[in-house]
Amino acid sequence: MEYELWYWDGIPGRGEFVRLALEGAGIPYVERARGPDVDDNALVDDMARDRPHPPFAPPYLVAGQLTIAQTANILLFLGEKHGLAPTDTAGKLWVNQLQLTIADMVAEVHDVHHPIDSSMYYEDQQPEAKRKAYSFRRNRIPKYLGYFERVLEAQGDWLAGGTDWTYADLSLFILVDGLKFAFPKRLAHVGKNYPRVMALHRKVAELDALQDYFKSDRRLPYGDGIFRHYPELDEA
Amino acid sequence: MEYELWYWDGIPGRGEFVRLALEGAGIPYVERARGPDVDDNALVDDMARDRPHPPFAPPYLVAGQLTIAQTANILLFLGEKHGLAPTDTAGKLWVNQLQLTIADMVAEVHDVHHPIDSSMYYEDQQPEAKRKAYSFRRNRIPKYLGYFERVLEAQGDWLAGGTDWTYADLSLFILVDGLKFAFPKRLAHVGKNYPRVMALHRKVAELDALQDYFKSDRRLPYGDGIFRHYPELDEA
Repeated sequence: MEYELWYWDGIPGRGEFVRLALEGAGIPYVERARGPDVDDNALVDDMARDRPHPPFAPPYLVAGQLTIAQTANILLFLGEKHGLAPTDTAGKLWVNQLQLTIADMVAEVHDVHHPIDSSMYYEDQQPEAKRKAYSFRRNRIPKYLGYFERVLEAQGDWLAGGTDWTYADLSLFILVDGLKFAFPKRLAHVGKNYPRVMALHRKVAELDALQDYFKSDRRLPYGDGIFRHYPELDEA
Repeated sequence: MEYELWYWDGIPGRGEFVRLALEGAGIPYVERARGPDVDDNALVDDMARDRPHPPFAPPYLVAGQLTIAQTANILLFLGEKHGLAPTDTAGKLWVNQLQLTIADMVAEVHDVHHPIDSSMYYEDQQPEAKRKAYSFRRNRIPKYLGYFERVLEAQGDWLAGGTDWTYADLSLFILVDGLKFAFPKRLAHVGKNYPRVMALHRKVAELDALQDYFKSDRRLPYGDGIFRHYPELDEA
């Protein structure tokens, strides 16, 4: 059985958290809403299909008879099934907890450039975005990155301890990577306060298992998705 | 072993999702940050303690040696341990998926009155809140409630089918209850479009297992938490 990943084409977005876990573990999958032969409406049409467990939003993963949505839920499934997280209750819940905290920050990053209405253009909510970006840079980046730094101080190289990554480590890589892209001045300024978080980012960037993916066109560049670089929203 | 629940005193907040599951299932627990003998700093002090799996934010549940944070993660744990969700993989993931979708809407409800900075007063972000409330009422309420209505059309009385509630049903009750409190005009106007969602709200309100709780002072009134009624943010 080959997994089918459904996510908007053209941006890494939340699909990237699933994609990186699949790629890092060498799990075969096919993108169902990307590629030259895919109809532009394929994803919207598939979402509207009758199924017992419909997704509210992409990404979702079709695994045989199962359709699984919500990024953290997909990763919980893949983590258990493919050993991408500890198998004991405490370790499994811990990695899920970390993933949900990462998801909270991802939602906040998105809302910096869309504080009023996710269906409106950035340009139509730019004054509000500037205000929100100020508090995000000042308060939220240190709060979240300080938390993950504290976790790594206690756990070691990886968020759940041990000698190997879990899916939450790959997700933290994406978060830090996206923050460095979106807020380069701020991350250059505060990054030194979070040496363990930055080291984790480098270690994932260098994982043998991900080198082919990083060089391939399966990895999409940042664009009009969650992580956007608007110079007017960044400051040291 | 008695569970210890840690959450801000004075508001139902996200703690309420955990509390209602515990109450509904008759699971003993103690509130560690509420009560006349509790120091005002107890929660903040406890959060700062060294522990292997520190929470980023409340609520968190202490279960013997385990400390479990993130609302959906706590409910995943309680659901498995106390039979508050299906035990098969598909059913367990489905209830977790629903819970995460409810959590997404809960975060949006909060951000309506705090679109710029969660640490600032509402009054200092009121113009932005009014703009966000417009799109929330118009776009987000129908999108989310329409989704849950569609789920109930397929599943029956409860979100995961069957003849009994899961923790996601109790959480959907809280969400609808909070929306009715915060946006009474809008809910009165659109509620008729979601008869199954409104019926679920009534059924949970009438559950025998919850009557004592609803009448007790363990249930906190809405206040300055997630669900706030600002008349200027509501409209039919």
